[in-house]
Amino acid sequence: MLMGGLALILDTQLSASAHSAMSDRLFETRRLTIELAAPLSAEDMVVQAMEEASPTKWHLAHTTWFFETFVLTPYLNGYQLFDEAFNYCFNSYYEHLGARQPRPKRGLLTRPSLDRVLAYRQHVDLALAQLLGEQTEAPPALIHTLEVGINHEQQHQELMLTDILALFAANPLKPAYRPPQPRSVPAPSEPLRWIDFAGGVYEVGHEGEGFAWDNEGPRHDVLLRPFRLADRLVTNREWLAFVADGGYETATLWLSDGWAAIMRENWHAPLYWESHDGEWFEMSLEGLQPLNLDAPVAHVSYYEADAFARWSGKRLPTEFEWEVAAATAPKQGNFLGTAALRPRPAEDEPNGSPRQMFGDVWEWTQSAYLPFPGYRAPEGALGEYNGKFMVGQHVLRGGSCVTPQDHIRTSYRNFFYPHQRWQFLGLRLASEVA
Amino acid sequence: MLMGGLALILDTQLSASAHSAMSDRLFETRRLTIELAAPLSAEDMVVQAMEEASPTKWHLAHTTWFFETFVLTPYLNGYQLFDEAFNYCFNSYYEHLGARQPRPKRGLLTRPSLDRVLAYRQHVDLALAQLLGEQTEAPPALIHTLEVGINHEQQHQELMLTDILALFAANPLKPAYRPPQPRSVPAPSEPLRWIDFAGGVYEVGHEGEGFAWDNEGPRHDVLLRPFRLADRLVTNREWLAFVADGGYETATLWLSDGWAAIMRENWHAPLYWESHDGEWFEMSLEGLQPLNLDAPVAHVSYYEADAFARWSGKRLPTEFEWEVAAATAPKQGNFLGTAALRPRPAEDEPNGSPRQMFGDVWEWTQSAYLPFPGYRAPEGALGEYNGKFMVGQHVLRGGSCVTPQDHIRTSYRNFFYPHQRWQFLGLRLASEVA
Amino acid sequence: MLMGGLALILDTQLSASAHSAMSDRLFETRRLTIELAAPLSAEDMVVQAMEEASPTKWHLAHTTWFFETFVLTPYLNGYQLFDEAFNYCFNSYYEHLGARQPRPKRGLLTRPSLDRVLAYRQHVDLALAQLLGEQTEAPPALIHTLEVGINHEQQHQELMLTDILALFAANPLKPAYRPPQPRSVPAPSEPLRWIDFAGGVYEVGHEGEGFAWDNEGPRHDVLLRPFRLADRLVTNREWLAFVADGGYETATLWLSDGWAAIMRENWHAPLYWESHDGEWFEMSLEGLQPLNLDAPVAHVSYYEADAFARWSGKRLPTEFEWEVAAATAPKQGNFLGTAALRPRPAEDEPNGSPRQMFGDVWEWTQSAYLPFPGYRAPEGALGEYNGKFMVGQHVLRGGSCVTPQDHIRTSYRNFFYPHQRWQFLGLRLASEVA
Amino acid sequence: MLMGGLALILDTQLSASAHSAMSDRLFETRRLTIELAAPLSAEDMVVQAMEEASPTKWHLAHTTWFFETFVLTPYLNGYQLFDEAFNYCFNSYYEHLGARQPRPKRGLLTRPSLDRVLAYRQHVDLALAQLLGEQTEAPPALIHTLEVGINHEQQHQELMLTDILALFAANPLKPAYRPPQPRSVPAPSEPLRWIDFAGGVYEVGHEGEGFAWDNEGPRHDVLLRPFRLADRLVTNREWLAFVADGGYETATLWLSDGWAAIMRENWHAPLYWESHDGEWFEMSLEGLQPLNLDAPVAHVSYYEADAFARWSGKRLPTEFEWEVAAATAPKQGNFLGTAALRPRPAEDEPNGSPRQMFGDVWEWTQSAYLPFPGYRAPEGALGEYNGKFMVGQHVLRGGSCVTPQDHIRTSYRNFFYPHQRWQFLGLRLASEVA
Ligand SMILES: [Fe+3]
Ligand SMILES: [Fe+3]
Ligand SMILES: [Fe+3]
Ligand SMILES: [Fe+3]
Repeated sequence: MLMGGLALILDTQLSASAHSAMSDRLFETRRLTIELAAPLSAEDMVVQAMEEASPTKWHLAHTTWFFETFVLTPYLNGYQLFDEAFNYCFNSYYEHLGARQPRPKRGLLTRPSLDRVLAYRQHVDLALAQLLGEQTEAPPALIHTLEVGINHEQQHQELMLTDILALFAANPLKPAYRPPQPRSVPAPSEPLRWIDFAGGVYEVGHEGEGFAWDNEGPRHDVLLRPFRLADRLVTNREWLAFVADGGYETATLWLSDGWAAIMRENWHAPLYWESHDGEWFEMSLEGLQPLNLDAPVAHVSYYEADAFARWSGKRLPTEFEWEVAAATAPKQGNFLGTAALRPRPAEDEPNGSPRQMFGDVWEWTQSAYLPFPGYRAPEGALGEYNGKFMVGQHVLRGGSCVTPQDHIRTSYRNFFYPHQRWQFLGLRLASEVA
Repeated sequence: MLMGGLALILDTQLSASAHSAMSDRLFETRRLTIELAAPLSAEDMVVQAMEEASPTKWHLAHTTWFFETFVLTPYLNGYQLFDEAFNYCFNSYYEHLGARQPRPKRGLLTRPSLDRVLAYRQHVDLALAQLLGEQTEAPPALIHTLEVGINHEQQHQELMLTDILALFAANPLKPAYRPPQPRSVPAPSEPLRWIDFAGGVYEVGHEGEGFAWDNEGPRHDVLLRPFRLADRLVTNREWLAFVADGGYETATLWLSDGWAAIMRENWHAPLYWESHDGEWFEMSLEGLQPLNLDAPVAHVSYYEADAFARWSGKRLPTEFEWEVAAATAPKQGNFLGTAALRPRPAEDEPNGSPRQMFGDVWEWTQSAYLPFPGYRAPEGALGEYNGKFMVGQHVLRGGSCVTPQDHIRTSYRNFFYPHQRWQFLGLRLASEVA
Repeated sequence: MLMGGLALILDTQLSASAHSAMSDRLFETRRLTIELAAPLSAEDMVVQAMEEASPTKWHLAHTTWFFETFVLTPYLNGYQLFDEAFNYCFNSYYEHLGARQPRPKRGLLTRPSLDRVLAYRQHVDLALAQLLGEQTEAPPALIHTLEVGINHEQQHQELMLTDILALFAANPLKPAYRPPQPRSVPAPSEPLRWIDFAGGVYEVGHEGEGFAWDNEGPRHDVLLRPFRLADRLVTNREWLAFVADGGYETATLWLSDGWAAIMRENWHAPLYWESHDGEWFEMSLEGLQPLNLDAPVAHVSYYEADAFARWSGKRLPTEFEWEVAAATAPKQGNFLGTAALRPRPAEDEPNGSPRQMFGDVWEWTQSAYLPFPGYRAPEGALGEYNGKFMVGQHVLRGGSCVTPQDHIRTSYRNFFYPHQRWQFLGLRLASEVA
Repeated sequence: MLMGGLALILDTQLSASAHSAMSDRLFETRRLTIELAAPLSAEDMVVQAMEEASPTKWHLAHTTWFFETFVLTPYLNGYQLFDEAFNYCFNSYYEHLGARQPRPKRGLLTRPSLDRVLAYRQHVDLALAQLLGEQTEAPPALIHTLEVGINHEQQHQELMLTDILALFAANPLKPAYRPPQPRSVPAPSEPLRWIDFAGGVYEVGHEGEGFAWDNEGPRHDVLLRPFRLADRLVTNREWLAFVADGGYETATLWLSDGWAAIMRENWHAPLYWESHDGEWFEMSLEGLQPLNLDAPVAHVSYYEADAFARWSGKRLPTEFEWEVAAATAPKQGNFLGTAALRPRPAEDEPNGSPRQMFGDVWEWTQSAYLPFPGYRAPEGALGEYNGKFMVGQHVLRGGSCVTPQDHIRTSYRNFFYPHQRWQFLGLRLASEVA
């Protein structure tokens, strides 16, 4: 989908070293990262839009540092660090691995230059190719760590795009990451339909052979009451009705912290919405575009999602309700691979099973991000990956329009603070069975 | 236990009007509030120690405003408001009831004076007596609202004492709320014993005739795995070992937000601990006292409790584990009624059932403060009491040494933000069954 | 003028020990402080309205600590400190004298109680009486330090009243420090008249026998160009015209820092102005009162004074222009002694000399608060009194309606930061001679 | 001195259009800006080091916008704006000219790209060449505005270098703007010599034909007392003695605001000093270099300069003392033209006249930045250039090692806030004549 000069530079050597499915996935992932960066200039790649975002160049380097640190150094004999200073520059938050560039100052790293970071990627990719070439029978721990590295890089692919959107949205010229694509005229979004699920004991969480994050396990039983789930995501049209009904001015609809947040931040609509001459627009990776009323609402905080649900007389689902429902839906949807780069209206007909469970927007759940019963973070630096964030955040499920499809599972748990909005975050309503 | 001139002023009229158990409890609660304030001067009562605390005078007035607003205005014909301006002054957070004095500025209310607030209490108490005298058969809604008012005032009794402690702790003279009491020499705290609980489906939450807060229901089933709970609270002696082992300097023991908090706030020990010449002291309602090593640790944040548990190789219990265990323990302990005003060492012998489940300190649980399945906040202003705080906080269970004993239930859910420390907050360890 | 029970308690012993003019002034000053506090309750006296204000009780104690520290300890043999902890509690900012209660937390000192602070005053007053009784020929250094102590206490008398005003203004009940007094109907304020002053070399600053602060010297020559000064202060009526003309919405009228301040703080009028139903009111020591249009405007920052002057096509005077003009005016005016407690319209007829130079409001000058040529701060702790504040502030001249008259001199230099407003701060226009 | 590919791109058309001294200076200034940027990558040019600094690209565009707005639009018939959106992007602080990119967010402007900004420069340079080619007799107002534009761009040349230093100092790799140059071994700095100046009336401020900023006038008489000035700047060696003597730990040496600043910011040495293994280094445009003990100290705030002077038993000079002394010294020194890019030790022998008055470091004076008598800001947007900053700042004199030499005059007044340090700011001692 995306094309750019940068995308080509790694092809030759990689194709030579690819000798297995794992290797293919590894280098395809590495290549895709470069492809996603291709529309950007070096200038675009160095700047940090805000504290919680990171520059593209930093993402390029950090994902590389990740392989160097967790794969090459322990597993490749004689591996030479590309640059010792990069541990300081590109360690994100691993306390086990020492001091690091403060997160709000990642955007000050005009050096190392983009060229040097690309050379770093090549250096590491070559070493990975060497490692995989040597290893006819890779030990399971190496295989697992490579999987972690691939999945880690996929997460940063999503972050790259959302961080670029944050940067371009803050620019008065409202640049587009790519030109707008023609869209089919959407059918008006049909009314919500509700799907009922029976109560009972369900198994949730990940188990089995495939890769999953530590926070998706242990697989365990949960006891659910009967519940009802909307068959599609909440749309911009529905959100507009909430705005028009004074949703953002009615204190009693909001959680106390939510009301404090919208007062403090002066929020009156989702992030990236702008009203000009009575018409609503939304900043997107295709620049400022008229709001697509039938598309799912995105860039809303937990506070807003919760207030909308209360205004609707409904509630948000728990992460387990979502997971149980998702097990009945095909794991397909508007992911990064569709190249839409925006949430899209539900396209298939209502069919009695939940639609848009995957892709489009991450779905806020009522569930706080906490450990599953029996969870213990792994030993060592990688144990910091997920476990130390288990306070103060909420779980989101299902992936978004900028998530790589093969990154997602039914048991996948994403997590953000209730005030955060810059990711593609939306919602689906739930309720009790009457 | 506590004596003071203020305590006597309401006796005459109240005893005359008391005609029932409800009435007795109501006026006894009202009287106890005054008794608790008795050791304080008007100066002590007007000042606000910090944003999250409130002045004693404000507590005295706010609890009175609560009865005026929710009981007298709707239920007593012809009731005259004591002062219309008091709705602004003493409304805490009810958006349904209009604008109010900003929370961080409650301490600026030198007017109305203490005398006028005491007159307000008398005015409202007399009207309550009149209402109860009239009502030979009070409607259930009135009875319920009276219960809410009593329980509300009990919560503020606890807050009064913790807010006074915060105020006195900030005073360089380290004043005592009351003179130190002689204590029995504690036996050295015996080693922790572990009590195992079987997995399975348990009923939790409140149901039945007695009063409970809306957030304790609906009663519902939960599915628990086998778990193991410490038979007593974590002690100061154990906490000192954590400090001595560098607990506050070891990033990898902490949740990410916790580490950020202790770095930002420069925490090196529980709130109110002070080290002088190598000896540890603790500020208490009896002034600055040598640390009682066998008493339960108090005034620790969720972050600290979690880090301690990790350092111990254990974890915090969930609120449901706690509730299931508590059902096996007598609902007695070191509450406000013991007049200890401080956590005490476990006094009874290890006996195979959990001790100190009630009183001493609120116990942090791993559970975020969220609605139970099927929970809906009541309509109207009282619906704001609990529901709108259901984000970002954690559940604590069991009550503390400044909680009135009859305020507590096995299903009682208290909640604080993970950084808060000024309440009597401690912990009990849990773990999986090996 | 003001009467209260507290005012009487020191009379007996003081009259016995008064033996000289100095002694009379000392104890009269000490008495006046108590008289000024008399309308206040203990509650009113303990609370701190905001960071830059102090509680009345703190003023009562701090002025006493000042005599204890700088007079009694060095000069009275065998003097016993009243309480050693008071150095920590009531040292304001003297680094020479060690650690102290942080300024923003002076309002947390509910202990020592007001009674104990009053006993402190008595203890120190008795010791001062003893010292003065012994000293038939007091050494000049003692005499000077006593003068410093008297003048210091006078400054705090003014601060007490402005800090109380700040406290009551923040109270939704808008209490009055004293009941409103009847006022004569003011004549409409006549147009400004301009008074010309010749250029040339003038002597400024203090010299001679009487007391002056170190920052008023050395007396030195300044070279002035011819200038023109308004014969009265800017009035509320004139300020209203500025408001009505969009003064607070016109960026180009403001200093850059001033515009930033009014945007940040959302200022649209002087501090303490409130508009109700199209009519303007002003919070005062007599409570919320209709704005007196002919009275001088008060409670404006330097930024506002400067913007008003620019809007008027004029400028603020320098401190030396003011001083030269003031030398031609009688040192009388609406000081604390008139008991007006508010700025008053100019009462005397225009007479070709500047009116209202003294009293009513401190007058902002264009002059930064900097040392005079040859200034050196005295040695020791008292050297911190004025010198260490010589950066970032502006000089104000002339005293206000809450300044004791005998505290003021033509050379007197007060100083505040350009954003501050809670004192009685106003302005007089100046300009070049055409 | 500095070489780079970017420096060449404008040469052709400029040499053709140069037809006069003014034109030469204009295009030489424009060329120099590009030359100064030449060592930087596009990445280096887009990032903003901190709020008070600006990105190089922004400087390149803003100086161009300045000519477009103040010269081309009013004076060149038919001039077409390069891009209307640039007024928003590159207006710095001119309220007359409408809304603008917030100063702290200048670094978010990854678009317009560097290429487009360079095209903007070409577009404007060509139009300027056309304007100058047409104007055989340019009107005085145009000539004056061109001068303003040249001087404005010179100021930004200095800011570009100091802002780049700030950016590289914040980078863990400590990049160098250019490679270190060999230096002659400095002679040990000889002791300070003092030069006496007589008191009396002196004329100060600018008058005459040459260009000066509005804030340098009106020229006027000042009356000075005899004073004494050090014949050279304070050195790093002397500053080290201050550090070693506990200067940064001794509260009584500091202005109150200064002490608060160093406590809050945790300052223990000048900005850019770093101590490694007991040796001091200084970050410079040549990267991290051993501290040159004989060079003038730089990157100190007013607070630090003032504390150092107090520790020395001396004081800072006033801006008029400085100006009177500077009139006796040749206007030459270590400016940008020496290409040292760092302060250098005094090289010439003590000779009874003040040395290092020009160049090396801006010299803090005791004088607040205030209008000269009779000053009025010009009408219109350019009137905002200097006048609206006349509060809260101090005057610095003499230029620095990154100031273009022909930008400076004896009457030149620079100004910064007392806490600022990122410019080349140093000091020279003064004192009274004994
Ligand atoms: Fe990462
Ligand atoms: Fe309450
Ligand atoms: Fe004082
Ligand atoms: Fe500029």
